[in-house]
Amino acid sequence: MPANRQVILSRKPQGKLALDNFSFAEGPIPVPGEGEVLVKARYVSLDAANRAWMQGVTYRSALETGQVMAGGALAEVVESKAPHLAPGDLVFADTGWQEYAAVSGRNLARLPNMTPITHLLSVYGVTGLTAYFGLLRIGEPRAGETVVVSAAAGAVGSIAGQIAKIKGARVIGVAGGAEKCAWLTDELGFDLAVDYKAGDVRRQLRAACPNGIDVYFDNVGGDIFEAALFNMANHGRIVCCGAVSQYDDAPPPHGPRGVPGLIVTKRLKVQGFVVMDFYADRDKALDELRGWVEAGRIKVQEDVIDGLENLPSGLIGLLAGENRGKRMVRV
Amino acid sequence: MPANRQVILSRKPQGKLALDNFSFAEGPIPVPGEGEVLVKARYVSLDAANRAWMQGVTYRSALETGQVMAGGALAEVVESKAPHLAPGDLVFADTGWQEYAAVSGRNLARLPNMTPITHLLSVYGVTGLTAYFGLLRIGEPRAGETVVVSAAAGAVGSIAGQIAKIKGARVIGVAGGAEKCAWLTDELGFDLAVDYKAGDVRRQLRAACPNGIDVYFDNVGGDIFEAALFNMANHGRIVCCGAVSQYDDAPPPHGPRGVPGLIVTKRLKVQGFVVMDFYADRDKALDELRGWVEAGRIKVQEDVIDGLENLPSGLIGLLAGENRGKRMVRV
Repeated sequence: MPANRQVILSRKPQGKLALDNFSFAEGPIPVPGEGEVLVKARYVSLDAANRAWMQGVTYRSALETGQVMAGGALAEVVESKAPHLAPGDLVFADTGWQEYAAVSGRNLARLPNMTPITHLLSVYGVTGLTAYFGLLRIGEPRAGETVVVSAAAGAVGSIAGQIAKIKGARVIGVAGGAEKCAWLTDELGFDLAVDYKAGDVRRQLRAACPNGIDVYFDNVGGDIFEAALFNMANHGRIVCCGAVSQYDDAPPPHGPRGVPGLIVTKRLKVQGFVVMDFYADRDKALDELRGWVEAGRIKVQEDVIDGLENLPSGLIGLLAGENRGKRMVRV
Repeated sequence: MPANRQVILSRKPQGKLALDNFSFAEGPIPVPGEGEVLVKARYVSLDAANRAWMQGVTYRSALETGQVMAGGALAEVVESKAPHLAPGDLVFADTGWQEYAAVSGRNLARLPNMTPITHLLSVYGVTGLTAYFGLLRIGEPRAGETVVVSAAAGAVGSIAGQIAKIKGARVIGVAGGAEKCAWLTDELGFDLAVDYKAGDVRRQLRAACPNGIDVYFDNVGGDIFEAALFNMANHGRIVCCGAVSQYDDAPPPHGPRGVPGLIVTKRLKVQGFVVMDFYADRDKALDELRGWVEAGRIKVQEDVIDGLENLPSGLIGLLAGENRGKRMVRV
C-alpha cells in the first residue's frame, strides 16, 4: 500500500515565507469514517489565502505548526462512506497538502467531468466565482464606467477584468512588469495596464482614469489600495477581495491614508466578501461563466506545476507575483 | 440702514483652528437679483464640516481666505425676487457667517414655523436627517444587534444612537468624559458609554461588545475608527459620516490599521454618504423623526450660543468636543 506523502507546516513564518517553513512527511492513508470519503488529491490549489491563514484567524482558524499544511484540492473519491458519492467522483475538498485525505462528505458536491478538468479549479472553481460575485455583486460596474483591477494578471484579477469588459466597462489592470501588462492588453483585452514596478501608481492611475475610478477590485491592499482610493470617483465602489501585499510579512504598521476621510467625501462603498456568502447562486454563476468561456469572451489562464514537493516553492512564488492566471500543483 | 456684520476667514489654519484665523468686517446689505432672495440669518449652524471645508475640496470647493466664512443658517426671507418665497418665510440657506445674504431661491424650500424653531436646524435639519439616513440606509441595524456610535454626545451621534435604540439595537456611545457618558446612558437611554479619555478604546469596546459590533456609526475617524474596526462582527457595517478627529490638523500621516485586511476577513461594508444623496425621501424621514420626537422617543439636545461674534470660538470649541447636541449661534 502506498504511503501518503504530506507537506507539513513545520514552522510559522515571522517574515517572508521560505522553504524552511515546511517539511515533508509520509503518513498512513486514512480510513474514512461513517459519512466520510477517502479522496486522492489531483490538483492542489495555490492561493494567497494559504499564506493569510498562517497569520491568524481569518474566516478559518489559524494554522498550527506540525500539521499538514491547509489547502484545497480538486480530488477524486477513492472510497466512499457517504451515500451521494462514489469512487471516481470528482470533488473540491479541503484536503490539505497531501495525497490522501479522509473528509466529511457533507459539504462535498460531485463536480462534472470536463476537459481540461483544471478548469474546475480556475474559472469554474473558487477563483472564477470570486471574480464573478465580487465584481458583479459588490462592484456592480455599469457600461461605460471605469474599473481598475489589481493583481490583474493573477487568477482572480484576470477573470474579474474580463467580466468587467463583458459588462461594457473601461478596464485598467495593475500588474508587475511590462510582460504581464502587455499580456493584459494584448491577450485579455484590457484597455490599459499600469505597471506598479514602473513608477508611482497613484500618478499612473490618475493619468489612466481622468474621470476617476468607479469600481476598484482590490486583491492587494497596501500602497496600491491607497493609490486607487485617492483616485476614486464619487459614489465609487471598492471590492475588497484580498490583501496579498500584507500577507507575507508582519502586519503593516499602518493602513492607507484617506480612510475614512475620502470614503465620506466621495461617498464610497468599501466592502469585503467571501465567495461562500454567495453560494446560493453558484449554479447560475457557473452557467454564465461557462457561456462566456465557450464564446471565447473569457480566456482562461492556468499555471500548472508538477509534483507535491513543489507546493512550498509554488506558494512562495505566487506571493512574489510570479504566476500568471490560476496556479495549481498536480499531485 | 444697518450694516451687514460678517466673519471673514482671514487666514487658513495650518494646524489647529484659532481665533486669529478669523476677522470681523461690515459689508453692505446685498440687493437680491432676479430669482434671488435677501435673507437675514437667525441661527447659524456650527458643524465639524465647517473645518473640513478649509482643508480642501470635499463635496464643495475649498474655502478662500479674505471671504466671508462659509456656513449654513436658518434664515428669514427679508425681500424676495423668487416667486415661491415671501418676506417672513423661514429657509435653510447657505448664507455664510454674516447677518444678511442674497442667495438663489432655486434650492430654497419654505420651512414650517414651529416651536422651538431651532429644531429646524437640529433634529429636523441636516443633523437629524444625517443621523436618520446614515444609520437606517447604510447601517441598517436589526433588533438585537450591537450599534456603536462615536461622538455620541454630538449633534448627529446623539440622534443616531437614539434611533438605533428605537430600532431595538443594543447601543454603545463613545464620548469624551464621564459627564457626557453619564448623560448618554441616564438621559438618552444608551445601554453603555465608553469614555475615550479614560483609557484604551479598543479594549473598552471589546469588553462592551463581546459579540462584536454589527453597526459602527463613525463621526470621528482616526484611532477610534481603528478601535471599532478591530471589534467589528462578521458582516458588520461601518457608516462613514465624518472624520472630525482629522479635520483640525494636518492630514494624518497614515490611516487605520486593518484596512483592507479586516474588511475582507470580516466581510464588512464601509460606506460613506452625504445626506443630500437621500433627499428624495426627506419628507418621509422628517415625518418619522417628528413622530419619535413627539412621542418622547428622541430627546433633542441643543447648544445655542448668542452673538455672531462668537461663531469662531463656537466652532473651535465644537472641534474640541465641548458641545453636547447640536451647536448653533443665534445672530
